[in-house]
Amino acid sequence: MNDVSDAKNPIVDPAVVAQLKSWGGYVDAKLGFRNHWYPVRFSDELEEGKPSPFQLGGEKLLINRIDGKAYCMADTCLHRGVPLSEKIECYSKATITCWYHGWTYDFKDGNLCDILTDPNSKMIGNRALQTYPVEEAKGLVFVFLGDVAEGDKPPALALDLPPGFLDEDRYALGIRREIGSNWRLGAENGFDTTHIFIHKDSTYITARDAPIPLGFATLPGLELDIHDRDDAPKGVVDPLMGNYQPVFAAEIDGKPALSSHRPDGAHQTIFRISLWLPGILTVENHPEPDITQVEFYVPIDERRHMYFQVLSKAGVTQPEQVQRYREEFTSLHEPLALRGFNDDDIWAREASQSFYDDDRGWLEEQLFEADHNLIAWRKLASDHGRGIQRPPKTGAAKVVEKL
Amino acid sequence: MNDVSDAKNPIVDPAVVAQLKSWGGYVDAKLGFRNHWYPVRFSDELEEGKPSPFQLGGEKLLINRIDGKAYCMADTCLHRGVPLSEKIECYSKATITCWYHGWTYDFKDGNLCDILTDPNSKMIGNRALQTYPVEEAKGLVFVFLGDVAEGDKPPALALDLPPGFLDEDRYALGIRREIGSNWRLGAENGFDTTHIFIHKDSTYITARDAPIPLGFATLPGLELDIHDRDDAPKGVVDPLMGNYQPVFAAEIDGKPALSSHRPDGAHQTIFRISLWLPGILTVENHPEPDITQVEFYVPIDERRHMYFQVLSKAGVTQPEQVQRYREEFTSLHEPLALRGFNDDDIWAREASQSFYDDDRGWLEEQLFEADHNLIAWRKLASDHGRGIQRPPKTGAAKVVEKL
Amino acid sequence: MNDVSDAKNPIVDPAVVAQLKSWGGYVDAKLGFRNHWYPVRFSDELEEGKPSPFQLGGEKLLINRIDGKAYCMADTCLHRGVPLSEKIECYSKATITCWYHGWTYDFKDGNLCDILTDPNSKMIGNRALQTYPVEEAKGLVFVFLGDVAEGDKPPALALDLPPGFLDEDRYALGIRREIGSNWRLGAENGFDTTHIFIHKDSTYITARDAPIPLGFATLPGLELDIHDRDDAPKGVVDPLMGNYQPVFAAEIDGKPALSSHRPDGAHQTIFRISLWLPGILTVENHPEPDITQVEFYVPIDERRHMYFQVLSKAGVTQPEQVQRYREEFTSLHEPLALRGFNDDDIWAREASQSFYDDDRGWLEEQLFEADHNLIAWRKLASDHGRGIQRPPKTGAAKVVEKL
Repeated sequence: MNDVSDAKNPIVDPAVVAQLKSWGGYVDAKLGFRNHWYPVRFSDELEEGKPSPFQLGGEKLLINRIDGKAYCMADTCLHRGVPLSEKIECYSKATITCWYHGWTYDFKDGNLCDILTDPNSKMIGNRALQTYPVEEAKGLVFVFLGDVAEGDKPPALALDLPPGFLDEDRYALGIRREIGSNWRLGAENGFDTTHIFIHKDSTYITARDAPIPLGFATLPGLELDIHDRDDAPKGVVDPLMGNYQPVFAAEIDGKPALSSHRPDGAHQTIFRISLWLPGILTVENHPEPDITQVEFYVPIDERRHMYFQVLSKAGVTQPEQVQRYREEFTSLHEPLALRGFNDDDIWAREASQSFYDDDRGWLEEQLFEADHNLIAWRKLASDHGRGIQRPPKTGAAKVVEKL
Repeated sequence: MNDVSDAKNPIVDPAVVAQLKSWGGYVDAKLGFRNHWYPVRFSDELEEGKPSPFQLGGEKLLINRIDGKAYCMADTCLHRGVPLSEKIECYSKATITCWYHGWTYDFKDGNLCDILTDPNSKMIGNRALQTYPVEEAKGLVFVFLGDVAEGDKPPALALDLPPGFLDEDRYALGIRREIGSNWRLGAENGFDTTHIFIHKDSTYITARDAPIPLGFATLPGLELDIHDRDDAPKGVVDPLMGNYQPVFAAEIDGKPALSSHRPDGAHQTIFRISLWLPGILTVENHPEPDITQVEFYVPIDERRHMYFQVLSKAGVTQPEQVQRYREEFTSLHEPLALRGFNDDDIWAREASQSFYDDDRGWLEEQLFEADHNLIAWRKLASDHGRGIQRPPKTGAAKVVEKL
Repeated sequence: MNDVSDAKNPIVDPAVVAQLKSWGGYVDAKLGFRNHWYPVRFSDELEEGKPSPFQLGGEKLLINRIDGKAYCMADTCLHRGVPLSEKIECYSKATITCWYHGWTYDFKDGNLCDILTDPNSKMIGNRALQTYPVEEAKGLVFVFLGDVAEGDKPPALALDLPPGFLDEDRYALGIRREIGSNWRLGAENGFDTTHIFIHKDSTYITARDAPIPLGFATLPGLELDIHDRDDAPKGVVDPLMGNYQPVFAAEIDGKPALSSHRPDGAHQTIFRISLWLPGILTVENHPEPDITQVEFYVPIDERRHMYFQVLSKAGVTQPEQVQRYREEFTSLHEPLALRGFNDDDIWAREASQSFYDDDRGWLEEQLFEADHNLIAWRKLASDHGRGIQRPPKTGAAKVVEKL
């Protein structure tokens, strides 16, 4: 791993990180991996000329749309450290002016272009706030949380997305929610195959009379598909088929104890699952055969993540297809699958938070065979994350001094 | 003191403990003494097959009744550290299954007897959650918060109860409440003779037109009865008689300032008070001549204790006697004595908490002559407590690894 | 600086203080400067024989009026550390008795004059609570938060007030409010000239159609009047005239961006501003030509200050003048100037708090030319503050041991 950020300001006890050699970097990345792209809004949320504050990897940031294009800048005035968003004042299209003493910043480069209370100040033109690259794709606004040297470009957005997500014939719709757990407990909840146990009573399953296993008995010779090629997305694919035997009935002390909603029903659909850097799950053919559920677990701070639940459907290109998919999404997938079904995942993540809160849970957890894909993910993330996100000083993004 | 628990994880600054040589162990026992019996419920609260979560000495535990007998087990799944009680799922009489991945534990020995999501796992039968011995007596459920080597038995429950409490002709009734102070501030409030000052305006006193002194002037040659014999309960008995002169009128700067409700009324009843390990008060002949009030100050965590207020009455053996005592308890003793009168003790303890919260209060307090019985108690507890309760890792009880 | 208080208990990281050589003392004075006078109440708030609790520089104190004269004493009983104010019990005019065990203290010297529960105790007459000198002037009650050796007197109150405040022909009226920021963010908000930017939309300005500049462009050769003579109040006076050019219209990137409410109206009134130890602002001729606004920023604890807003008017000596001024104050100045106009200052201070909360803001802030008067103030305060207020042990005032 190439850690370009400040290693002097750890938020995870280095003694804990050191004990977890194979995935120390992952445990260290409590605030996420730096130098990666993260979705922060849906495109239709971002209005022209309406700066909006958000938090990403512990940093307080602003996003604004100017002449259609999105820009991201730190939300902390250089002068006395107040949040610009406490009272948003924009006196020109491309700038924001601090409500306190009139320091004015250009959204495009963060430059302190004017100070309205003192036009004679020598600070003007010689200071800048941190800015981050922004791109939009498939209806999502992505921010590159990282450092780009002058003249350089950030890595391609496609490298931080699951393969196929940007395919021309796919259309994405989704929702986002703030969740009270670290982002890794979100990612692991999604990729973990045996958490299916919490969905056994979901009305989404029983209402459709669908079969769902209680669990997945591990078979000998568990195999995963590790994607770690240069210049391609990095991720772990669990094919499911061949690794596990679905469990429809369970015993305790040798006696029947519990059976699934439709113990007779085989689990027919082939759906692979995969987890990609910097924290993106895909579940193929879910909730419908022609849809891939894509989940982004975006670090807000140590204890919260933004949960983007996106359904990417193939073969949706014509306006009437989009219209029909929107109706299907709004009336069916969002209420029943993204909310009804996934609501259980949310409280499960939040119930895990206290054990991992002080980082010692990573030492004390006792993983079992079915967690082999989580272990592969942790190692891959530790090896291929482009940097550890460190807490910014006093919550502000980095200061660029030009003088 | 035989400290069998983990001394590497202190919650009280060792420098503070070291300065208080005579009662350092007591100051260290912020979470209570380990290897002792504590009441955690009334027997009639504990229903068959309804596991109930509680906290004791900082540990998150579950208690359940199976075929009439009570069992206590840790409430933290070994796998990913979630509380089992977050969503209780029991699929056989003697077990609880973790709602997240189906790990199933036997209440009787904590054994990981099955994993419903993967019956092939090698963890099954090779891991166990911490369990603690449970006994019931006089309508109370007691948990032994301590370590018992295989084949051994815990110390007898009677050793952690005031002498006579288990006598066959006594019947106990009571209530319990959660109090916002450390357990020691509860115990000391109860045993401290001069705190009687806070009861001077109690309607329980004025309504019955009962005499109650404002305080107790200390006499020369204060004497206590120290119970520290092997194989017997350890405690300090203050006979009251001979140690103090009741104060019915007080002066300030030599002028009359305050007199008690009935300054003429002598304090007639002989009632001794005593304080026993691990934190149990008795007040004899209170609130009535034939009743002993027994108070248990049970550590929940650093800042809270469960306050068990029990009235143990002699000569109650026949059903009709029990019935009459219940009516008397419900209509008179509970509302007027346990709630009305003792409510003042509760806010007094809570008002003391902030001074002792960071443990420096133990260095800065200025005890006076009347506190001699508290000093004797602190020394006895430091010498005879069977261990210091340490905070469990991440709130979980100890893990027993069998592999 | 003569630091007579306990330097062993710093609340600001000494490494931060050391980096800020010129104004390290100021940064260290998070709880205020010790050995100075602070207003704590208006005189008409303090009733005879009604002790009232408050906090000053992190210390929990009581103030009481006895035979017309005000006294200040610690609010923490020496015995078990409870707040006397939890339940106030006074059984003689000059004393307060602790509700818990009857320890009784004399307000005039803090002496433990009696213990109502045990008149035989040898503690009586041999212990005392901390007391502080109190003086009243111009309708305010001032407490000297400092140490006075036996036989000595504290420095004169006039040394801790702006020159002229005690003049016989001036009459002071005001209000006080608790603000959620450190006291220094209050003081700097008031003295900082360019914060005028936040008042540009104030209805107090627009309703009166008054001119107010957007800011003050700094001119070459900024000059201040530093008052650091022995035996006189210590402060920094900014004459405004000559230092700045009022800004009525502002540009961004060379184009007109914003103009003040009345860009034509010159700012006519001469009003100097000044800031005095231990934290008192004056604004002359504000809100009316014959009134000086005097603001006291009194440290409550690390994160709160009591904001005294006082209007001192000249030529108010006769009862009918006082009456007219009271009516003017109540109907006009209080609602429109002290509340309407200054309300913006309050949220500005509170919005600054998080950046300075862990003290690193003092290292990371980027001051500009207009902040020259704040820099002068910080240096003056560091050089002439009479001591650093340190956090009292467990919130109690110092204990005087006489034995």
